[in-house]
This record gives sequence, structure tokens and C-alpha cells, in this order.
Amino acid sequence: MTAPSQPQHTAQPAGLAIPAGMPRRQTPATRRPLDLNRLSLNQATTEPYTLAEAAAACAQAGIGWFAPWRHKIAATGLAESARILKNYGLRVSSLCRGGMFPAPTRDERAARIEDNRRAIAEAAALETDVLVLVCGPPNGCPLDEARQMVEDGIAALIPYAEQHGVRLAIEPLHPMFAADRSVIVSLGQANDIVQRLGSPWVGVVIDVYHVWWDPYLDREIARARGHIFGFHVNDWVVPMADTVTSRGLMGEGCIDIPRIREAVEAAGYHGPIEVEVMNRDLWQKGCREIVEMVKNAYMLHT
Amino acid sequence: MTAPSQPQHTAQPAGLAIPAGMPRRQTPATRRPLDLNRLSLNQATTEPYTLAEAAAACAQAGIGWFAPWRHKIAATGLAESARILKNYGLRVSSLCRGGMFPAPTRDERAARIEDNRRAIAEAAALETDVLVLVCGPPNGCPLDEARQMVEDGIAALIPYAEQHGVRLAIEPLHPMFAADRSVIVSLGQANDIVQRLGSPWVGVVIDVYHVWWDPYLDREIARARGHIFGFHVNDWVVPMADTVTSRGLMGEGCIDIPRIREAVEAAGYHGPIEVEVMNRDLWQKGCREIVEMVKNAYMLHT
Repeated sequence: MTAPSQPQHTAQPAGLAIPAGMPRRQTPATRRPLDLNRLSLNQATTEPYTLAEAAAACAQAGIGWFAPWRHKIAATGLAESARILKNYGLRVSSLCRGGMFPAPTRDERAARIEDNRRAIAEAAALETDVLVLVCGPPNGCPLDEARQMVEDGIAALIPYAEQHGVRLAIEPLHPMFAADRSVIVSLGQANDIVQRLGSPWVGVVIDVYHVWWDPYLDREIARARGHIFGFHVNDWVVPMADTVTSRGLMGEGCIDIPRIREAVEAAGYHGPIEVEVMNRDLWQKGCREIVEMVKNAYMLHT
Repeated sequence: MTAPSQPQHTAQPAGLAIPAGMPRRQTPATRRPLDLNRLSLNQATTEPYTLAEAAAACAQAGIGWFAPWRHKIAATGLAESARILKNYGLRVSSLCRGGMFPAPTRDERAARIEDNRRAIAEAAALETDVLVLVCGPPNGCPLDEARQMVEDGIAALIPYAEQHGVRLAIEPLHPMFAADRSVIVSLGQANDIVQRLGSPWVGVVIDVYHVWWDPYLDREIARARGHIFGFHVNDWVVPMADTVTSRGLMGEGCIDIPRIREAVEAAGYHGPIEVEVMNRDLWQKGCREIVEMVKNAYMLHT
């Protein structure tokens, strides 16, 4: 993969510049061979391609897990999507994504909860028991109230989730997304919500991109024991061309992924590992080429 | 001020897009007239201009505080800088910046501590009792070790700081800077360091841009009581053209600045309020125009 495109404003005035220096990883690239059976392709990594194209590429690469996104499911059709995935022998590690709870009016909030119910039903139809929740931006609401709307929204979904056998996985996003994508911004905050809701149907998904900076990450991963429903890998590359679409493949950036993975395993999670790399340069490549790169980066740097 | 320049990659694939919606402020723009006597111009806001130019603009605008940066002091000369500021009747709210502690070798770390000693002496010469610490990126070190180097570096400076009557103000930066600017990324983490070091010469500076996202901000501001050495204002604007140089003036973004200011005041801080807006579009304007805009934004939206 080529280097991410450079940001428009790389050069900084001399006085504001800081000598470069990303963190060095503490752990060797691979201390023991990673189990390929845990690798799951998150469909955002192959965003330009259809579900059928991405599924075919996974099957060819010997990848057994897949994590579809709802807009792709909608484009292909739910029943057809389920059929394609089954034909390729792919299991669904999670469905991306529910959430988006905050809204200024009661009606709009109710509509969003209703949409989450549809997402739960879709997850069940795809035979996955995990729905990833990107909890949503403040959407014109004060930050504290928006956070309460998230918690209330998840609480409202629990009976429906239980009924369908689908677990709700809160994905804390990086704090840089607090204004425009998610008011849930740390694993500690997500753990607090899980603890308050006290339901086996509510837990977290841990994405290294969103949590690697956290000085209390080890403590919060340990605290998440028993409610870790997913684990996502990718990498943090600086300078950052774009906050959303310039993530790196594992090994291209500074995140000590093996260290975080081992902490997540020590906390009892041994399920699928989703590779979710939203990257415009990567998306220029062919679907099979992307999947091969994903597989190599997974084997070497996760 | 014109809208910040658009990022190169604004458009996202439809499925990844999120309905826009920044948080609404909870507090009215100004509940009571803000005291202009507390306003301080942080020199980064007028980055293209010399210390003499910025000081003159402050004096003309009736601003009584100024926060110079070391590269500007170096360009003008320390004694001459002190003379200029005194001639204009400007008091120095803080000197920006010390810090930058992590480095892979013992010699380099020692050199950085030595540079911080020079910064302390400069602060004293400028008759300010606050040195802002931007603690530095990992600089090739593992993240945990880099964080320890910060704490060790600050500890090493305490006797010298005390001797010069200069307080060391840790500025936690936004977590998006963990790889390339500061391994200290939350007020809670900074408070923990202050607590462990247990010296009246070590505290924090709170910059709304860096901390507004924190779900535990109120708690940590309250915990910082007695060791808040400074308060910086600006605003968070999305979409973000650049992580460093597209900050907004107060009122242009989504941060509930009055709410945070009141929490900081409730925790006992009533000192200068520095306006620190690093923004390439703003920097295109004349120095006096910038300072007028700063003053207006301060009066209306802080």
C-alpha cells in the first residue's frame, strides 16, 4: 500500500512544529502465529465493492468471517445477502451499524430507535449475534443530554435485542469524533454505560484506532471482561490526511496492536478480529488485492 | 472571519456519512458581561506577526495580558521582548512553551530538561510565574515509557522552578495528538501526575479545545482545584481542515465555552483567560484586525 495522501496543510509555522516521533511498539510484530481463523473482513475496508465482490474475495483468500455494513446489505437485499454469505461459507462476525441515538425531538429519537430495531432484525437474519452501535453525534443537542439519549436508546432496545438473540456492542469512537460522529468517546465511558444498564445483551466493541491513546486503557479493558463483543484492528498514521478515511493497515502506523490484542485476550475475548480500514488510497485498489493486503497485515502486525 | 477552508476529503462514501449535527451549547452566549481585564492574547493567534506588532495591537485594543511563545521571544531577543511588553503595559499571563520530555536516549532527555530550565529562566525574566508544558510526543519511545519520561522530567524541574518562582502548567492536549504532539491527553491524566508529584509548583492549564469532549470533565476540573494555573479558549469546528491550524474563534464551533469557564471559576480559577486560536485563515488577516476579532469573540462567546 502506498503512503496515505498528504494533508493539504502539512507544513506548520516553525514555532508550532514539533520534532516528529511516533511511539515505538513495545511488542515484537508477532510473538506467536496469529490464528487466521479469527480474521474477519469488515466491509468498510472494501467500501467501493459490493457484498458479493467482497465475499468472493474473502472466500478466495481463505477468510472465514465477514462484517457487512447495512448500506451494503440494503443495496444487495437482505435475503440475497444472507444467501451470498452462506454460499461462500462466511460467518458474520457483526453487523455495522446501529446507534445514532441523539436527536432534538422525541419523534426523531423514536424513529432512530425503530431503525435500530430493524438493524437488530437484520443482524438476526444474517445469523450474527452482534450489532455494532456507533452511538451518534450530539445532533444539535447539548452534549450531556445527547449522552443520556444514547443510554436511554440502548435501554429501550434491550428487550428486542434479547428476543432476537442479538447483543448490542457499544463502540466508543475516538474523542476527535465527539462533535460529528459519536458522543461516546472512551472505553471507560462505554463501560460505565454497560455497568449502569446491567444487561448481558449490552457490551462493547474495542477498536484500536479509537482507544489506543487512552492512558487508562489497560484498566478499562480488564474492566470490560465478560462484555467484550468484538475487536477491531487498523492503525494510526500521522500526519493525518482526513480523520475518517486515512486509517492505516496494521503495521503502517504507531498503535501497539499486539499489546492491545493480548490485553483483550487476557480479558477473555477470543472471538473474531475485524480488520476495519477506511482508507481512500486503499479503496483505489482491486477488491482481491485489498483482501490480500488485509490478510498479510493481519498475519504480520496484529 | 471566513469559514475555515474545506478539507481535501470532505465527501465520504454515502454509507459512512453521518447526518451533520454539532452539539448545541447549554449556556446562553453571555450570561453576564465578561471581564475584559482577564483577556490575554496568546501569541499563536497572531503567529505571522512579531512580538512588537502583536503587543502594539493588544495595547491599542485595551488588552492588558499577553502570552508570548519562545520562538518569538528568540526572534526579538529576551531583554528586548521584556522591554517591549513593559513599555506597552502588558503583563505576561504565561510563557509558551516548555515540555517535550520524551526522547530515546538519556542524553537527549537531559538536553530537553536543560532546555526547560532555560524556559523557566525566560519566564522569570518576562515576569510571568507560569510556564506552559506541552509534554511532547512519544518520539520513538513506547507510549507508557514516554509518559513516565514526562513525569520524571517535570519532577527534575521542580527545584529550579521553585527557585525562579515559576509554576509548571501541564497542558493536556487532545487525544488526537497522542502520536505527534503530547502523550498527556486528558485532564484526569494530568491531575494524576500533579497529585503524584505533590508540589505547589506543578499544576495544569485547561484549554477547551483539548478537553471539551471528556465525559468526566466536570469531575476533573473540580479535582484540579488549587492547581489550575491557566485557562485557554478557542473553538472546535467541523469538518476539520487540519488538526493543528483550523481551530475556530470562540462562537464559531461547538464547545460550550461559558459552561467550562464557569466550572473552572467554580474550581477557584479567576486568572487570565488566554485566547489561543491557531488558524491559517485568521493568520491571513492584519494583526490589529485579528486582535479586534479576538476581543469581540471573547466578549460575546466566552
